[in-house]
Amino acid sequence: MAKDTRGLTATKVDDTAEWYEQVCLKSELADFGPVKGTAVIRPRGYYIWEQIQQYFTINILDKYEVDNAYFPLFIPESFFTREADHAEGFAPELAWIATANDDADLKKERAIIRPTSETLVLDSFKKWLQTYKQLPMKINQWANVVRWEVKQTKLFLRGREFLWQEGHCLYADEESCDEEVQNIITAYSTMCKDLLALPTIVGQKTEAEKFPGAKKTFTIESLMHDGKAVQMGTSHNLGQGFTKGFEVEYKGSDEKMHNPYYSSWGVSTRLIGAMVMTHSDDKGLILPPKLARQKVIIVPMSHKNNVDEITAACAKLADELSAFGAMVDDRDDYSLGWKLNEWELKGAPLVLILGGRELEAHSITLKMRDEDEKRTISLDKLSQTVSSELESMHTRLYEKANAIAESKIITVKDKDEFAAVIAEGKVAKVLFCGEKACEDAIEAEFNLTSRCISPEPVGQDAKCVFSDKPAIGWVYFSRSY
Amino acid sequence: MAKDTRGLTATKVDDTAEWYEQVCLKSELADFGPVKGTAVIRPRGYYIWEQIQQYFTINILDKYEVDNAYFPLFIPESFFTREADHAEGFAPELAWIATANDDADLKKERAIIRPTSETLVLDSFKKWLQTYKQLPMKINQWANVVRWEVKQTKLFLRGREFLWQEGHCLYADEESCDEEVQNIITAYSTMCKDLLALPTIVGQKTEAEKFPGAKKTFTIESLMHDGKAVQMGTSHNLGQGFTKGFEVEYKGSDEKMHNPYYSSWGVSTRLIGAMVMTHSDDKGLILPPKLARQKVIIVPMSHKNNVDEITAACAKLADELSAFGAMVDDRDDYSLGWKLNEWELKGAPLVLILGGRELEAHSITLKMRDEDEKRTISLDKLSQTVSSELESMHTRLYEKANAIAESKIITVKDKDEFAAVIAEGKVAKVLFCGEKACEDAIEAEFNLTSRCISPEPVGQDAKCVFSDKPAIGWVYFSRSY
Repeated sequence: MAKDTRGLTATKVDDTAEWYEQVCLKSELADFGPVKGTAVIRPRGYYIWEQIQQYFTINILDKYEVDNAYFPLFIPESFFTREADHAEGFAPELAWIATANDDADLKKERAIIRPTSETLVLDSFKKWLQTYKQLPMKINQWANVVRWEVKQTKLFLRGREFLWQEGHCLYADEESCDEEVQNIITAYSTMCKDLLALPTIVGQKTEAEKFPGAKKTFTIESLMHDGKAVQMGTSHNLGQGFTKGFEVEYKGSDEKMHNPYYSSWGVSTRLIGAMVMTHSDDKGLILPPKLARQKVIIVPMSHKNNVDEITAACAKLADELSAFGAMVDDRDDYSLGWKLNEWELKGAPLVLILGGRELEAHSITLKMRDEDEKRTISLDKLSQTVSSELESMHTRLYEKANAIAESKIITVKDKDEFAAVIAEGKVAKVLFCGEKACEDAIEAEFNLTSRCISPEPVGQDAKCVFSDKPAIGWVYFSRSY
Repeated sequence: MAKDTRGLTATKVDDTAEWYEQVCLKSELADFGPVKGTAVIRPRGYYIWEQIQQYFTINILDKYEVDNAYFPLFIPESFFTREADHAEGFAPELAWIATANDDADLKKERAIIRPTSETLVLDSFKKWLQTYKQLPMKINQWANVVRWEVKQTKLFLRGREFLWQEGHCLYADEESCDEEVQNIITAYSTMCKDLLALPTIVGQKTEAEKFPGAKKTFTIESLMHDGKAVQMGTSHNLGQGFTKGFEVEYKGSDEKMHNPYYSSWGVSTRLIGAMVMTHSDDKGLILPPKLARQKVIIVPMSHKNNVDEITAACAKLADELSAFGAMVDDRDDYSLGWKLNEWELKGAPLVLILGGRELEAHSITLKMRDEDEKRTISLDKLSQTVSSELESMHTRLYEKANAIAESKIITVKDKDEFAAVIAEGKVAKVLFCGEKACEDAIEAEFNLTSRCISPEPVGQDAKCVFSDKPAIGWVYFSRSY
């Protein structure tokens, strides 16, 4: 019998970084790539990304009539200089290519490996767009992007290469652009809730934190157990700045030339990282059921004299529960305990254990991954029971995460309270002027930035607790991943 | 009324290269990227790739139980040296990265942008594989790869970046490996026939043409109207060479350590290029119906006095034919002729034209993209008619392509006949010894290489027409894209 040496050796509260890495590695979601800062997404992890893609296709791309396309990995360096803020924002993390065959064109102008594709997409839009009848023009791509991070990288949460989708849309009028930018951020938030069981804070980014070159950036932020936030997705209203810079024009119904309004929006494999960190525990991965290929694992518990009977009963159950990807763990060289530990580590949402006594009583032992106790349930209407148990689990995970997130947010009235809340590792909700200089000063003093502006209204006379200038709203500040 | 200036200005026979490029551009399948040798796949083109992905997932990945994963874009340069032939084969086209933040690790060892991922996948397999119980281990990834071609690039057919899938599988025994390598190449060929309406020649590559580092390479080759071949997909039996080089080992049931057998296989967006070139004509794109999102276009032909009636009837038809993605082209600033030309250019498989006279007669005018004449058909059971017309079109396209391909293949008996056939721009089928030195000499003299070895048997005493040594089989030689 194999000795069980696969469990986690760090705990979520005491050493979050080590615990998180172990969960990703030992549950076989991901592995490190050989080039520093790169990662392999293993099949169990990639399956999660595929569920995100599927949900996204139906609920966002199809709903908002966005077409998939594919743009090149390489961008001429000069494209990055046409929108000044954009150029400055991405400069430190850029990577470009060199070639064995000593390409003369690349010596004239470097080819940047895309960190994001706005400039490249606009170059195509410029060629494709002629008339107002083509608007709105909506494109999405699923792609890898490269940002040569100097910060410490983390599986899923920060990598030098990651997978994402990027939507790029043109509109004739500013209102349509702004409305869709907000619809998308809301749809992102709904996806986090419905698919990943993750609560998010939705809001607008401050001047200091908006996307380089954007007019407005909206974000969804997820709060972890340690009070740090993960930026989960962004949706940018880019106004006409980029389309003017790239000379994207169309002839309007008025026969005059106009620059369209432009939006871009994206979510990435970071979603997987936030989901893992939020739900998992010291025993291993906890997966919301919709993200598990095998939602049900059936473990036989047989003796010499009933092995055939139990084997047959388990096979029948797996067949009955095939819609849940049910699988029988019939490995005979591992103990029941070892198997249960392994499925706990790997995040199987629901485990069923069938022994002779259960079979006689027409019942089965059920263990939900996020609950401590086993329960005995009837074999009658098992499929219905499993379905409702999995749904309940999704709801429990969401509500637990939400309660933790809410407990982290502390409304503060002055700078001292702000300092105390931050020191405690929580999220400060504070009236803030939104000015870049003020935020730069906060960053210098506290080494953190704002997450976003809450959409809730503030009184006309509300004042920034740092600058005493008029407040733009309640703003969340916290450390972040 | 807009003037129609969108048609093709080159013909398939007289200037294939210019004609092909115009078809891709003007049917809006693809566009050039701003970095030389890169391309944009536009929504109409990307839809085709999505159909390939969908077919592939069901008929290959699911059937052979291959899991999707994702490996990094970057490979340490030293990995390329561990399998000597592999290193030599890819060296001229390699590209690597340089970064703005002056990465010290990259100075020690360059990070290659993947041209193919064997070495990277093996590095992971080495970590993941422990016991024979994990075999076979089967992984696929959908990814972009970079080969810095010095040859002239062509949309879809040859690019410095392209999209593909690459399967990577480990087996305990050589027979399983070899069997699956052949199953995959057969499945590729079936996909070409069933989805892309493309006939292919299936065979093994010669020593000179096999994948760098492979024991055997199988290929599917598609023959174009000009007698040039397109290599459409390959499946490699890599033996134990790579797994020994990368020290991939497992403990067998005999408790001893073994190197597994390894296969890799891939198809790329080249498939789209071969499909476009094979089926299209001087009026524009011809798409096999399964690859068209809008399989049916309905064009109203109304007068002032029946416009409401015709509009309503077209809307009803579009609804009835929604399973075919039917769309009404109701643009009122274009003439009927302009619209028909545009849909011909863009490759709509089936166009329906509805006017007052047809409506009265309970009929409609049908025009199949690959036929010259319009036909009048009944509106009764229209959905069934459309379905069978689209099926017939698929079969016609396949059979036409097959007849052209077969007419290009000439069996030759000696070197003079070989020279004549090649000069004529056809494919020579010839008894060949298969030796690298002999093939190098043919390449030097005729500037072409072999496509593959036909699986048909040859007699014991068959001799190579070039070297007079024993022939390994009938081998196809032709120029290629």
